[in-house]
Amino acid sequence: MRVWYSDDNAIIRQKMLNNSIERISPLLSSIISQGIKEGTFEPSFPEQAGEVTLSLIQSLWDRLSLMIINDTKDKGCIDQMKNILVAYTDSIEKVLGIPESTLSIINDETMNQWVNFK
Amino acid sequence: MRVWYSDDNAIIRQKMLNNSIERISPLLSSIISQGIKEGTFEPSFPEQAGEVTLSLIQSLWDRLSLMIINDTKDKGCIDQMKNILVAYTDSIEKVLGIPESTLSIINDETMNQWVNFK
Repeated sequence: MRVWYSDDNAIIRQKMLNNSIERISPLLSSIISQGIKEGTFEPSFPEQAGEVTLSLIQSLWDRLSLMIINDTKDKGCIDQMKNILVAYTDSIEKVLGIPESTLSIINDETMNQWVNFK
Repeated sequence: MRVWYSDDNAIIRQKMLNNSIERISPLLSSIISQGIKEGTFEPSFPEQAGEVTLSLIQSLWDRLSLMIINDTKDKGCIDQMKNILVAYTDSIEKVLGIPESTLSIINDETMNQWVNFK
């Protein structure tokens, strides 16, 4: 993780980010379309919901990764990470138009593994 | 804009992004706190709303900038940019807990100036 987030990989990270928006957004959009048909998703902007969701997941991923790399793994830090996760998850639920607290992106066990993986 | 988004500036862009999250998020959070006191903002996660909002603005900014740099300035592209702007604006309104269509991040005049600035 440290290597991935090192300055030497800044260009490849950005190229992959831009690439993922172009390539993964349409896939996410088709999943969202299916969810709309099934009545589980109710996004305000169906065509853009995939892209906005992806940018939120990417920001969440970067934020948590940099916290794992840079911060201590004390309880305050882990709590802060969990609070950030919950806030981003809530915003994704709002973008997708699904009920609150129904989406699970990272569970507690995985989060603890990440922190110890540091 | 092309220089800013060139590969040579990938490291400085990422450092500024990380720095802005640390420095600007608290400022945004204090504005949001004021909004909550005044009854205009009603975010689900007041402490994290600044950070999530900032990440959405940053993603929107990067997305529109790269479209301006890479795409033609035909009507289809401008319409796509406007649709992306509206979708991100809607998601920010949801994060801040403000009514739909009350937030204006970039107006049409500025958007047209950007496209012609290309």
